[in-house]
Amino acid sequence: MFQLHPQLQQDTYPVSESDFVAILLAKDARFPWVILVPKVSGLTELHQLPEDALIRFSRLSAAVSQAMMHAFAGDKFNVAALGNQVPQLHVHHIVRYRDDAAWPKPIWGEGSAQTYTDAALEDRLSLLERHVVPLLAMGGD
Amino acid sequence: MFQLHPQLQQDTYPVSESDFVAILLAKDARFPWVILVPKVSGLTELHQLPEDALIRFSRLSAAVSQAMMHAFAGDKFNVAALGNQVPQLHVHHIVRYRDDAAWPKPIWGEGSAQTYTDAALEDRLSLLERHVVPLLAMGGD
Repeated sequence: MFQLHPQLQQDTYPVSESDFVAILLAKDARFPWVILVPKVSGLTELHQLPEDALIRFSRLSAAVSQAMMHAFAGDKFNVAALGNQVPQLHVHHIVRYRDDAAWPKPIWGEGSAQTYTDAALEDRLSLLERHVVPLLAMGGD
Repeated sequence: MFQLHPQLQQDTYPVSESDFVAILLAKDARFPWVILVPKVSGLTELHQLPEDALIRFSRLSAAVSQAMMHAFAGDKFNVAALGNQVPQLHVHHIVRYRDDAAWPKPIWGEGSAQTYTDAALEDRLSLLERHVVPLLAMGGD
């Protein structure tokens, strides 16, 4: 049975989930930074997803990317499956701005995470609720 | 008509290409690091690929990842579409080792690229030729 890795649980706010995927918001107010976790136990790599799940996930990931770029009016989008520190397969989806805290570098390891204020967190979650969460219905069974 | 961005041209060795995608090897001997470039002009984001190309690319990317992990006996695989510095859509595929030069951090911005010796380059290209290039025939028209 699928269980979210404790480190992901600690580093994120849960946004929503379906049978297929969990949507998490990283606890770093500097970036609109969503993590998608396919709910398949024991996977560490994107290429380990069975073909139907891979295609379903790729479609969802693209739709989430597009929706986040629209909702947060970004300049650039970064998508990455790294997992060198937290082995459970998870895929970063990050809206970037030409004046953000890490630009033009990748965000990992640049400075320190900024805690969300209650208001900023509410704003961000409400945009995700409106633009991203409805996409969970995509490609369902 | 599709043209490879001059910066990608400068930073990589061409490995192979099809009508659909170019396969490049990054000029950094520290990592088995392949860059896939979908040959569609004017794209900057993965989610801008038309749906059929997105699915075809996702399948190819997963197959390349699996083949690289096998060919280079890696510990972990990193896949990322960043493009904050070179706007042309390109997707990094990197074999990681627990004792590589950047582990466990992402590779970008860690230390300096190491020039390939002729022998090391020949070895790497020959493994790619054998294990990765044949995948270009996947999902063709």
